[in-house]
Amino acid sequence: MEIFMIIAPIAAILALGYALIAAYGVKKAPEGTDKMKEIAASIRKGASAYLKRQYKTVGVFFAAVFVVLLVLAFVPGLELVSKFTPFAFLTGGIFSGLAGFVGMNIAVTANSRTAFAAEKSLNSGLKVAFKAGSVMGFTVVGLGLLDFSIWYFLTKYAFGLEYAALTNAMVTFGIGASSMALFARVGGGIFTKAADVGADLVGKVEAGIPEDDPRNPAVIADNVGDNVGDVAGMGADLYESYVGSLLSSVALGYAAMSEYFAAEPDKAVWGLLIPVAIAVIGVVASLIGTFFVKTGENLSSKSLLAALRKGTYIASILAAVASVAFILLVNIDWWFLAVAMVAGLLGGVLIGYFTEYYTSDNSKPTKNLAGSTETGSATTIISGLSLGMVSTVIPVVIVSAVVIASYLICGQGTMGFFGIGVAAVGMLSTLGITLATDAYGPIADNAGGIAEMSGMPEYVRERTDALDSLGNTTAATGKGFAIGSAALTALALLSSFINLVDTTSIDLSIMNPQVLIGAFIGCMLPFLFSALTMSSVGKSAQSIVVEVRRQFKEIPGLMEGTGKPDYHSCVDLCTKASLKQMVLPSVITILAPIVVGLILGVPGVTGMLFGAIASGFMLAVMMSNAGGAWDNAKKYIEKGAHGGKGSDCHKAAVVGDTVGDPFKDTSGPAINILIKLLSIVAIVFAGVIEAFPSLF
Amino acid sequence: MEIFMIIAPIAAILALGYALIAAYGVKKAPEGTDKMKEIAASIRKGASAYLKRQYKTVGVFFAAVFVVLLVLAFVPGLELVSKFTPFAFLTGGIFSGLAGFVGMNIAVTANSRTAFAAEKSLNSGLKVAFKAGSVMGFTVVGLGLLDFSIWYFLTKYAFGLEYAALTNAMVTFGIGASSMALFARVGGGIFTKAADVGADLVGKVEAGIPEDDPRNPAVIADNVGDNVGDVAGMGADLYESYVGSLLSSVALGYAAMSEYFAAEPDKAVWGLLIPVAIAVIGVVASLIGTFFVKTGENLSSKSLLAALRKGTYIASILAAVASVAFILLVNIDWWFLAVAMVAGLLGGVLIGYFTEYYTSDNSKPTKNLAGSTETGSATTIISGLSLGMVSTVIPVVIVSAVVIASYLICGQGTMGFFGIGVAAVGMLSTLGITLATDAYGPIADNAGGIAEMSGMPEYVRERTDALDSLGNTTAATGKGFAIGSAALTALALLSSFINLVDTTSIDLSIMNPQVLIGAFIGCMLPFLFSALTMSSVGKSAQSIVVEVRRQFKEIPGLMEGTGKPDYHSCVDLCTKASLKQMVLPSVITILAPIVVGLILGVPGVTGMLFGAIASGFMLAVMMSNAGGAWDNAKKYIEKGAHGGKGSDCHKAAVVGDTVGDPFKDTSGPAINILIKLLSIVAIVFAGVIEAFPSLF
Repeated sequence: MEIFMIIAPIAAILALGYALIAAYGVKKAPEGTDKMKEIAASIRKGASAYLKRQYKTVGVFFAAVFVVLLVLAFVPGLELVSKFTPFAFLTGGIFSGLAGFVGMNIAVTANSRTAFAAEKSLNSGLKVAFKAGSVMGFTVVGLGLLDFSIWYFLTKYAFGLEYAALTNAMVTFGIGASSMALFARVGGGIFTKAADVGADLVGKVEAGIPEDDPRNPAVIADNVGDNVGDVAGMGADLYESYVGSLLSSVALGYAAMSEYFAAEPDKAVWGLLIPVAIAVIGVVASLIGTFFVKTGENLSSKSLLAALRKGTYIASILAAVASVAFILLVNIDWWFLAVAMVAGLLGGVLIGYFTEYYTSDNSKPTKNLAGSTETGSATTIISGLSLGMVSTVIPVVIVSAVVIASYLICGQGTMGFFGIGVAAVGMLSTLGITLATDAYGPIADNAGGIAEMSGMPEYVRERTDALDSLGNTTAATGKGFAIGSAALTALALLSSFINLVDTTSIDLSIMNPQVLIGAFIGCMLPFLFSALTMSSVGKSAQSIVVEVRRQFKEIPGLMEGTGKPDYHSCVDLCTKASLKQMVLPSVITILAPIVVGLILGVPGVTGMLFGAIASGFMLAVMMSNAGGAWDNAKKYIEKGAHGGKGSDCHKAAVVGDTVGDPFKDTSGPAINILIKLLSIVAIVFAGVIEAFPSLF
Repeated sequence: MEIFMIIAPIAAILALGYALIAAYGVKKAPEGTDKMKEIAASIRKGASAYLKRQYKTVGVFFAAVFVVLLVLAFVPGLELVSKFTPFAFLTGGIFSGLAGFVGMNIAVTANSRTAFAAEKSLNSGLKVAFKAGSVMGFTVVGLGLLDFSIWYFLTKYAFGLEYAALTNAMVTFGIGASSMALFARVGGGIFTKAADVGADLVGKVEAGIPEDDPRNPAVIADNVGDNVGDVAGMGADLYESYVGSLLSSVALGYAAMSEYFAAEPDKAVWGLLIPVAIAVIGVVASLIGTFFVKTGENLSSKSLLAALRKGTYIASILAAVASVAFILLVNIDWWFLAVAMVAGLLGGVLIGYFTEYYTSDNSKPTKNLAGSTETGSATTIISGLSLGMVSTVIPVVIVSAVVIASYLICGQGTMGFFGIGVAAVGMLSTLGITLATDAYGPIADNAGGIAEMSGMPEYVRERTDALDSLGNTTAATGKGFAIGSAALTALALLSSFINLVDTTSIDLSIMNPQVLIGAFIGCMLPFLFSALTMSSVGKSAQSIVVEVRRQFKEIPGLMEGTGKPDYHSCVDLCTKASLKQMVLPSVITILAPIVVGLILGVPGVTGMLFGAIASGFMLAVMMSNAGGAWDNAKKYIEKGAHGGKGSDCHKAAVVGDTVGDPFKDTSGPAINILIKLLSIVAIVFAGVIEAFPSLF
């Protein structure tokens, strides 16, 4: 049955093939008027320039870590990491970067085409944007499965590794993807918000020109930011969750099945096959789901949302049914794994649903938040923060229920942890389509910007606005989903870490002060990390403000529309600032598990990982939801509530939205990576941590 | 040597005696002009009215819980809690309430007297305010030691309990103090900030009249709030920490010393005597320290701070030297306990120091925060939040270092946990004087208000302003100290809980999903709790806004100063609103450990307690420091920086300050109680949790 593993590369090729066809379809669509082409070209140029520079900076880091890993792997007497890890590190990084690159390229290709297609009909606009989003979605899962397959077949057939060695080696392979993801999320997140805040502060507030006005020198940087942050960053993030959950499940699965089939060790390979099969089924289900995404000409966000939802829900149901059927056909006694898979998938859908509840202007919390603008910006901030804090309750309950259900039902112990892994893989199985709806958001946002800047007719703008507003909702649900899956993946990785180290003489009790203090420090890391990334946005935005002010002052005729702003200098500034600022938080994340490990040993690291997952989850949910709610409260007021645009309430809402920007697009999402990367670093350096005596 | 325990009631009488004399000293000081008397009387009346109503509401709760405890203790076949617990519950609540009552009474007596004394000299003003603060400080420690002594002698001599039974019973006795403290902190916290925000929103922002203007109908409520929130609430909070740390140390100490003196069980009583001796030494040291508090006529906050610091530092050094000497004289081999005591004391001082660093306008972080007002209120909020988040790092390191050092040095195991308890007692040993400097703050604040309202000459107001500004700093350090000691106390209580339950067949490993999920839920509780308390402030403030607006509209001549505002209705509204709003968060706190215990068993509760301590510590530090920094950034601008009063920067700073108000005075401090009360509830209901089968 080992040959069955061939489905992984087949599904990878299927996903990538679909992505290629969809990309071709997007490219074929007309690009629009000359003005639109010109704007799109500027955005494209800026985004490519950023990505090139980012990859260069990251390249230095990768080269350095590669050398360190080489030394740890090959220097005789050390041999503290698997000898495959250095190379897997590189491929993971390259594939993750590639996923971001492809996604971003298709996004900057699709933005003007979406705007132009919206002139024809709302459905045409939606189709182009969603198709582009699905390029991203299927590239991510395709590359993920491809990376997995390459290493699986290499280690198994070219190097002849046993399954135990193979799965343990492969669980370390996520580090490349994780590191790349961190840089992409943090760098991109800082870029996008620095540009956004900078553009708004001078443009909207000081100069009094509308959003996306082409006279604003930072407007192109703002649009570039949507692509490098929300598209490339999100892609790298979920690539990492996808690969991480698969790798850790496979490792846990082999360990669990080896116990289960103690008498027939050959059959333990089912521990690998089941997660892979769930992932493959998810790819096919997602593909089918994409064909159901279409809409009429009803501009209401409800009807548009229903269009996207239909595709996602069909894919989820298909994936659930087929995975359950598969597992039961293999062994009817393994119904518990089927339950874990469904629990994970359902958990993801529910977290998305409640994220939307807390952040959509159709529901009470955001409407109340909009009401709190009546008493000024201070109460707006207080209400938004408490909305974000309250919104942690349900996701915590959902994740707890998923973890408890899958662990308990799967019979506790190693099989229980495998159950958690299966739940994580289940949650991410339909990533192809969920990511498509997610990446759709920034594309629609850009399309709206281009429609505005190129002065398209009112009815087109109404359509792009509708598409954009839907994008905000899908972005919010996408973020909820990303956090939920990150938490589950990180817990699975934590289990893998424990599975990997020698715990015979180790006390992991929470009353062991090593664990206790480790957890205390772990709890603090997301706070530190958020603070650093938030203040990075502030610092970077500051430099944009200075530059935009300078251009308004020095370039003659800029406000009158006769002079041409220097878009490039703003893009360049954002690039430099964000790349500079992303280094410190990244380095802290990578060093933390090693330093804590050397001082507090394996128990300290275990505590730290758990502390970071728990408090990181709270902060990430709180920041994302508060940010999303502020954004939508502002939009709600702009639609006419509480005095509408320009009223005092609107001003207060803008303050909330500006605070929410780094919350939801920089710090919040970056915490997802933080918690996964900490676990992966601990896994890779487990040998190092174990080799050196800790303080205890 | 058991007779040696007599020092506890002696020290209690000493402390209470000093408090009485100091109170007499305050009363003797002249109360001031008729106008001042009138204002002070209004504040006094409002505060008493609030406290009376609060005690009535809380009384219902206490009666209900008392009955539940009676049932659990005495119904044959149940007997799930100690039969002393119901009665100890009542005395704890009464003593804690009494501490708040006394503190508040002396505070409302001292406010006008401080203002009047400041007319004579700065030193006179400082002396009156500090003397009143020390009444509070010594009442708290005196009543704490008294409650401890009464129950110790009763259970030992009247009921003839063995030490093991006695210490285990007594560790449950903190629940009364904790419950009372929660109500006092939450109710008082909501009151003070609802009044403050409500008064500011209409008075300063809408009507354009200065702070503390007697025409503002909410001005008395605002001043009442300082007393019921910052004085009574803080007193009940620290009473609880003091008693909690002592009770848990004594329980841990007896357990540890019983192991240490396995051959000579008689000597195990040293486990009780040492913490008690440290506490007693602290009382004496604090008393001596108070005599060193005096100042010249230099108005700078630095020189004033030095005056208060001198007293605290002298007390700390004396306490450290005497405690170390005592421990070494008893048994020179117990140097490790001496180290733990010093570590705790030093840790408290250091946390206070760094809190001040992050929140004082003499240092960089707050100055930078003031600078961020240049780009508006949004950046002010972002910078403040990241300042708060970054400021968690050092306190985490300090608490970790104290825990690790005391645990490791004391030889791990039970003795290690006793070490943590000794560190907690050490940190709180000089509470008499630290609380005095802390309670000084709101008294000086009120004095400033009275000086303003009664129209005292400029030079008096300058002096009261200087005293008030110092009060802000001591309030900030006091908050840092309260959080640090709460974390240590909660950890000691957590250890007591583990010590109390039967852990032989229980897996407390962090990889046990019961623990894991418990910790997840625990981590979430402080977020939920903060959200609830913050939105309570918002809701209550809203009702004040409506009332103040009504009065401005309906009372003729109010703005011109010819009409008289109805202060009472605002006080009444605040009282009703805050008492109503305090119920839900309190009930959640008390039910959480029981519900989690019934579902997830002892491991789940352990995880939950730890999760709540860790994330609660972060949130509390973050909120207190962000709030303090916003407050001082505003004051810094008011002194003339960044355009001074009335500038755009000042407006942005006011937004920050308003957000910071519930942060630093409601939600942040209430978290201290949350984490301690959760642990105490778990301890009291340990029998119940163990008696019922959990899901697992």
